[in-house]
Amino acid sequence: MATLIAPKDFSPIEDAENIKKACLGWGTDEMAILSVLGHRNSFQRKLIRIAYEEIYQEDLITQLQSELSGEFERAVCLWTSDSADRDAMIGYEALQKATPDYRALVEISCSKSPEDLLAMKRAYRFRYKHSLEEDVASHTTGHIRKLLVGVISAYRYEGPEINEKTANLEAEILHDDIHGDGITYNHDELIRVLTTRSKTQLKATLNRYKDIYGTSFTKDLSGIPVNEYLATLRMGIRCIRDPKKYYAKVLRCAINAEITDETALSRVIVTRAEKDLMDIKQLYLTRNNISLEDAISQHTYGDYKTFLLALLGN
Amino acid sequence: MATLIAPKDFSPIEDAENIKKACLGWGTDEMAILSVLGHRNSFQRKLIRIAYEEIYQEDLITQLQSELSGEFERAVCLWTSDSADRDAMIGYEALQKATPDYRALVEISCSKSPEDLLAMKRAYRFRYKHSLEEDVASHTTGHIRKLLVGVISAYRYEGPEINEKTANLEAEILHDDIHGDGITYNHDELIRVLTTRSKTQLKATLNRYKDIYGTSFTKDLSGIPVNEYLATLRMGIRCIRDPKKYYAKVLRCAINAEITDETALSRVIVTRAEKDLMDIKQLYLTRNNISLEDAISQHTYGDYKTFLLALLGN
Repeated sequence: MATLIAPKDFSPIEDAENIKKACLGWGTDEMAILSVLGHRNSFQRKLIRIAYEEIYQEDLITQLQSELSGEFERAVCLWTSDSADRDAMIGYEALQKATPDYRALVEISCSKSPEDLLAMKRAYRFRYKHSLEEDVASHTTGHIRKLLVGVISAYRYEGPEINEKTANLEAEILHDDIHGDGITYNHDELIRVLTTRSKTQLKATLNRYKDIYGTSFTKDLSGIPVNEYLATLRMGIRCIRDPKKYYAKVLRCAINAEITDETALSRVIVTRAEKDLMDIKQLYLTRNNISLEDAISQHTYGDYKTFLLALLGN
Repeated sequence: MATLIAPKDFSPIEDAENIKKACLGWGTDEMAILSVLGHRNSFQRKLIRIAYEEIYQEDLITQLQSELSGEFERAVCLWTSDSADRDAMIGYEALQKATPDYRALVEISCSKSPEDLLAMKRAYRFRYKHSLEEDVASHTTGHIRKLLVGVISAYRYEGPEINEKTANLEAEILHDDIHGDGITYNHDELIRVLTTRSKTQLKATLNRYKDIYGTSFTKDLSGIPVNEYLATLRMGIRCIRDPKKYYAKVLRCAINAEITDETALSRVIVTRAEKDLMDIKQLYLTRNNISLEDAISQHTYGDYKTFLLALLGN
C-alpha cells in the first residue's frame, strides 16, 4: 500500500502557476513547491510537467534544479520525474561516484518487473546516449561486474510456473558454488541462476535451499569473509526475495549511519511512496521500535524533512 | 534489397481456402501451398493466418506441420510464422540439440536491432514459459555461455555517436585480451565490449584495431587454436560487422558441406528473403563464381528446392 495522499480534484494549470509563482522574485518559496508536488500522484505530476512546459516553455525539472539545492533539490527532482526517468537518473548518479554505488544499481534492477526494468533502460539510452549495461560494464570489473551486468540485462520470465526439479537441482548448485575452499570462489553458476531465472522460480529454489540445508542461502553466504561484492550479492537476493523487508532494512541502515545516508533515504522514500511504503513503514516499526516518521524526523532537517514526511502521508 | 516477389492484389480468404483445399483428401498438394505462401510478404501471410483461423478454427502453422514433412515442412512453417515467433522457434530448436547450435543462437542475436531482439525474447517467453537467456544459460557453460548470454541479453544503444577515445582504448583492450600466452585466455573484457557497446561504436573499435595493428581482429583471433567457442565468437563479430557478407559465408558453408546443412540454409533464406537477400545473392555470386540459385538447385531437391527458389524470386 502507498503512503502518498493526493487530492482527487486538482488543476495542473493552477499547480504549474503556483510553482512558477514560488520561483519568482528573491528567494524561492520552498514550502509552496512542496505543498503542491508533495501531494500529487505520478499521473498528476506528469500533467503538471506538461502544463508547465506548455505555459512557460521551460522544463519543470530544470527549473526546480535551479531553484532548490542540496538533497532537497535532488529528492524533489527525482520525485517529479517519470518513474523510468527517475530510475535512469539514479543509475547514472550511481555510476558517477569514484566507486560506483553498487547497491543502488542492484536495487533499481532487482526490484522491478521485467517491463519496468526495460522502460528504465530505454529511458537511460535516451538520456545518456549509451546503454546502462555498457556504462555499468565499463565502470566495474570481476565478480561485481558479472553480477551487475547480469541483473541489469535480465529479461526474466514472469509466469507463476515453478519447476520443482530445477529448484532442487539449483539449490544444490548454489550450495556447491559457495562451499568451495571458503576463500576463492567462482560463482558463475550462482550468478547464472540469480540473473536468469524467473523470480518465482528463484524463490522456490531459495526455499528448497533452506529445506535441504537448514539455513537460508544469504545466511550461508555470510560465512564467507565479506567484501563489497558479497554484500551487494546478498542485497540483490534479499531484494528479490522479500522487497519490503529489504527496503525496511535499507532505511534502517541509512537512518542509523553515522552521517545519515540521505541518498539512500530519498531513493527509497521517493521510489516506494506510491507503491508499498505503508507496508515498509509497518515492518520498520516492528523491527526498530520507532516509527519511520519519528526516525526520519530525528535525523533530517528543514524542507527536506518536511518533504519526506509529506510523501510518508503526513 | 529483398528477393521475394509478392503480388499487390491478393485475397487472404481465397488464399486460406486454397491452402485448405490443398490439405483435404488423400495426400497434400504441396505445389498449391507453395504457390500461395512462397509469394506472400510478411503482412500478407499474417492476414492469411488470421483468415485461416477465422474460417476453419484451426491454426495454420499446426495444419501445415501435420500436412508437410522434413525440411520442407520446417522451412514453410518458419516462413509462415511472424518474424519474432520464427526467431524464437529457431532459438528453441538450437537448444534442443545434444550440443546446442551455438551459431544459430549467436546469429539470431547479433543480426537484430535491439527492439527486434526484444520482440524475439518476448515471443520466446510467451511460447516456452521461460526466458531465452535462462535456457541458454542452463544449456551452456564457460566461455560460450558468457558470450551467448551476453549477446542475447544485450539491449544496445542504437544512436550514430562514436567515441573515438573509447574506440582507441578498447582496440587496445581487445588486443591485450587475445595476446596472452596464446593458450589460456580470459576474454572478460572482449566479451564485455562485444556484448554491451552499440554496433556503431563496436565497428569503430574494430576499424581502429585494424589501423593500429595492421590486421583485422577476427584474423588475429584465428591465431589462437580453434575451438567451438572461438569459432562462434568470430561468427558473432562478423555478423555484427558486415551481416550480408556473413550470411553469404553461412550459405557457402551450408551448401558446400559434405551433407548440405539444410537447417542453416533454410534459416538464412527464410529470415533474409524480405530483407537483404538480393545483396547477399550478389556477394555469393562474386565470391563463388556460381549464382546462389544454381548452387541451391544442385544441392537440394523436390518441393524444398522449389520453395527456396520461390523465396529467391523465381
